[in-house]
Amino acid sequence: MTGLPASGKTTIALELEQRFKAMGRNVEVLDGDEVRKGLSSDLGFSKEDRQQHAKRVTFVAKVLTRNDVIVLVGLISPFRAFRQAAREEIGDFLEVFVDTSLDECISRDPKGLYKLALDGKIKDLTGLQDPYEAPEDPELVIPTEDVTVEQAADMVMDTLRDHGYL
Amino acid sequence: MTGLPASGKTTIALELEQRFKAMGRNVEVLDGDEVRKGLSSDLGFSKEDRQQHAKRVTFVAKVLTRNDVIVLVGLISPFRAFRQAAREEIGDFLEVFVDTSLDECISRDPKGLYKLALDGKIKDLTGLQDPYEAPEDPELVIPTEDVTVEQAADMVMDTLRDHGYL
Repeated sequence: MTGLPASGKTTIALELEQRFKAMGRNVEVLDGDEVRKGLSSDLGFSKEDRQQHAKRVTFVAKVLTRNDVIVLVGLISPFRAFRQAAREEIGDFLEVFVDTSLDECISRDPKGLYKLALDGKIKDLTGLQDPYEAPEDPELVIPTEDVTVEQAADMVMDTLRDHGYL
Repeated sequence: MTGLPASGKTTIALELEQRFKAMGRNVEVLDGDEVRKGLSSDLGFSKEDRQQHAKRVTFVAKVLTRNDVIVLVGLISPFRAFRQAAREEIGDFLEVFVDTSLDECISRDPKGLYKLALDGKIKDLTGLQDPYEAPEDPELVIPTEDVTVEQAADMVMDTLRDHGYL
């Protein structure tokens, strides 16, 4: 799942995690914060560091996926080329664009990142200061301003079914 | 599994991998070379870099383990403190000391690392140049000069059974 900060990636991932657990499936949510702590505490948010981080997350997602674990990766993942590299490396991969307008993300701002950026205390926030390349041909687009979390999760489940994963 | 370079960690891990696959279990071998490529291509072999590498491998082993994957980690992992940190972080953890004498490792030398070190072309080979802290209280010691690979794998399976993992 790719999208701007505060677009709703982790919220949708956590709803999906509950559903998969209820189905008895092994499932892992890899979201930015925990993974950065475990794998990339040495990295910042330059393009090079984001690429290195994407490479590590891809490795983890790959080894989990090949062991029958459903992996929900909720990363901003702003660069098209890095997402394409992850797709090629992992193989069993669906790209979900969590499509929330910048205005809406700024008004949600659960971690206060946009406020920090608007106050000049962060210089590299994706969407506001750093570029975000929206997916051109994702398997699913979730317009979060028009659907509930439950509907968003339904859309992901349907997409997984359509692609033969469930 | 911890032990000197060329002590036999990967050989034993691959034998175990076959056995677990035959049992229908999900299993992942994390050995130094592949993991360094996927996770730690930015790192060298200083103590700080080895610690950073150990931390990343620990993260991967943790997320696999909590998804019912048997993880066979074959790393030199020369420092006691880093192995202890991995044990605490992962929880379901057995330490296996692949105990092969330095002389025997030098005579095996399948990757030619000892030759490179003896020729002065590597400066940080564990056992010869960098320190190796042998485990003080591992769950299992495998004296590879006295047992076959099959016997070594049997010993690991017995140890897993004794600890309730099989």
